[in-house]
Amino acid sequence: MNSKLPDVGTSVFTRMTLLAQETGALNLAQGFPDYDPPRALREALARHALAPGGHQYAAMPGLPRLRAAIAAQVGRLRPGAPAPDPDAEITVTAGATEALYAVLAAVVRPGDEVLVLEPAYDLYGPAIRLQGGVPRYVRLPAPDFRPDWDAVRAAFSARTRLVLVNSPHNPSGAVFSAADWDALAALVDGTDALVLSDEVYEHLVFDGAPARSARQHPGLRGRSFVLSSFGKTYHATGWKVGYCVAPPALTRELRRVHQFVTFSVSTPTQLALADTLEADPADAHARGLAGFYQAKRDLFRGLLAGAGWDLLPVPAGYFQLAGYAALSGAPDGAFAEELARRWGVAVVPVSAFYHDGHDPGLVRFCFAKEAPTLEAAAERLRAGT
Amino acid sequence: MNSKLPDVGTSVFTRMTLLAQETGALNLAQGFPDYDPPRALREALARHALAPGGHQYAAMPGLPRLRAAIAAQVGRLRPGAPAPDPDAEITVTAGATEALYAVLAAVVRPGDEVLVLEPAYDLYGPAIRLQGGVPRYVRLPAPDFRPDWDAVRAAFSARTRLVLVNSPHNPSGAVFSAADWDALAALVDGTDALVLSDEVYEHLVFDGAPARSARQHPGLRGRSFVLSSFGKTYHATGWKVGYCVAPPALTRELRRVHQFVTFSVSTPTQLALADTLEADPADAHARGLAGFYQAKRDLFRGLLAGAGWDLLPVPAGYFQLAGYAALSGAPDGAFAEELARRWGVAVVPVSAFYHDGHDPGLVRFCFAKEAPTLEAAAERLRAGT
Ligand SMILES: CSCCC(=O)C(=O)O
Ligand SMILES: CSCCC(=O)C(=O)O
Repeated sequence: MNSKLPDVGTSVFTRMTLLAQETGALNLAQGFPDYDPPRALREALARHALAPGGHQYAAMPGLPRLRAAIAAQVGRLRPGAPAPDPDAEITVTAGATEALYAVLAAVVRPGDEVLVLEPAYDLYGPAIRLQGGVPRYVRLPAPDFRPDWDAVRAAFSARTRLVLVNSPHNPSGAVFSAADWDALAALVDGTDALVLSDEVYEHLVFDGAPARSARQHPGLRGRSFVLSSFGKTYHATGWKVGYCVAPPALTRELRRVHQFVTFSVSTPTQLALADTLEADPADAHARGLAGFYQAKRDLFRGLLAGAGWDLLPVPAGYFQLAGYAALSGAPDGAFAEELARRWGVAVVPVSAFYHDGHDPGLVRFCFAKEAPTLEAAAERLRAGT
Repeated sequence: MNSKLPDVGTSVFTRMTLLAQETGALNLAQGFPDYDPPRALREALARHALAPGGHQYAAMPGLPRLRAAIAAQVGRLRPGAPAPDPDAEITVTAGATEALYAVLAAVVRPGDEVLVLEPAYDLYGPAIRLQGGVPRYVRLPAPDFRPDWDAVRAAFSARTRLVLVNSPHNPSGAVFSAADWDALAALVDGTDALVLSDEVYEHLVFDGAPARSARQHPGLRGRSFVLSSFGKTYHATGWKVGYCVAPPALTRELRRVHQFVTFSVSTPTQLALADTLEADPADAHARGLAGFYQAKRDLFRGLLAGAGWDLLPVPAGYFQLAGYAALSGAPDGAFAEELARRWGVAVVPVSAFYHDGHDPGLVRFCFAKEAPTLEAAAERLRAGT
């Protein structure tokens, strides 16, 4: 059969997770915690699993109670902008992945260009191409991976339909400054271009730095789809619930597609999330995430210090990028393979985040792991030195 | 914003459910049960909600245990074909809806034609058009809604990429005979056309008639995507888990897209379904569904007998189609509105299943309801006579 994505195989995350299973390597590749969602959330899901009446289709845009709770939280945690309207501006999706896909399907027509800043999460390019769109890639300069806005401007054209941004950034953890958001707003000002802002690591910003959302910028709010993920926020990547906040006209288009892509999201899971958000009106859980993950980052960096790894700064997120020039001259794909097979630690080679296989000589470790996992991994990673 | 689906509003299912909520009408419109999934399944979900370790991303194609259990069941219940290979031929999706969408996205290119037999589930057309495909509609002749294969053949062209079939059929309950499957196989024989066989009502075939799958036809198995739904089989439409069985080359293309549309499906839910399937190696649950739903069909028909409704035969599924010429001369959309507002029963007008608004003068009742609901609805429906 003639493939529509002939060059796309199984994603690097799946491949590295399978390699970890095959080799017995510790899996610091695919981005997921090795601990569980909070007990209260799991108990809420158990309660709704047993309770009668909450097992049929949820409302297509998401359970009204959950949308109301999301809107209230966004209003509290993203000051300076009005809280979103739960009826007209919030859509619950099967993970941020479905939101991303559905936004692209709703907006991108054949021949439309979408700006993608690389390194980038591996689904962006193929999902754009499936709509007949053309990804226009702009490299984020290493080692801090903040946009070079002149380069972004140079790639912007009359065909640019959408600018896809991701702050905090996977894999680097780079966070847009106020000046970055201003530059993005200036870029799209006076054009028809929309913004897809993937903010799934929004609560994992370290060192007291502010986390800003596209929603908070008056020049962006009216043209942005903003994505978040309960998987990341509640250590529940396998529950597959995310959401999109967007102005009514954009939400209308997203829902037109969402209703045909998945229609609705698990009712018991949405009920459990609604209970959990409603029970935490001070947002203690979300507010505590930065400290929780910063401690993991600091632990992991400390454990690897002096072992020949070039540890890039990690301003946010789940991931530590590391150069390994002192340890190996191999391309990062080959080195990642060797790390899994011989050192016993699975990682993602950062070349997997470039459409052209560009090799920045970096690997990505996920530090969203219990301390003993990080300690065991560090022990293996120090053995090579 | 310039819509990609300007003519598509909120689906009729959502609209009628909202109308039911607004008017207090009994909701026999959207197809979902008003009873719960089996207790053992709900208890399994509660167990996995509480248990540690089952909350992160499931394998992209589906939990291996669940795929194995599905393959074994398909092997048992669809004799005459080898059981599918769980690794290469089964993909777990966010409901049959995601499977449908992902198959279309994987297969249909701009300009490709897809044959759709109408009346048809309302997502087929827009989901085809989102791929740049062209739906070619062929009417199923009322009142039995079995294909006129000469008409189907006349619509088939060198551009036909896919033939979409749905047996048992929503909304009519029509079931393909062996001759229908033969005619379909003859139609695609020697062409490149593939088959998308939506079989979500596969276990709800009444009166002892055989339920045949595209998988069981040697001329179709190698080119068919076969969809099923745990939502329908386990009275859990809100859990949003379905699956696709297809030969390896087709499964490969489906997964290429699925990994970008949703990536994976709720892990605790898949674990609960795996437990439940494994605990029922005789398929008592699936085998009992026909009797369970046939009793509801017979009850509902009996309650409406002699009240002026023209009750069409219901060989399978969730739905009773009914003519109302003796009760009203209104178009079915207007009559459905009146039924909700004045009679207190929400239904779906069958014109919603035609892309061109063709009005067959029929409304659809969902009888997947507890006996008291059906009795209350019938009382209201008899009042008009
Ligand atoms: C959906 S698998 C990828 C998980 C992830 O976000 C990552 O590892 O970058
Ligand atoms: C996804 S809402 C539609 C439910 C259904 O299958 C129907 O009512 O036909």
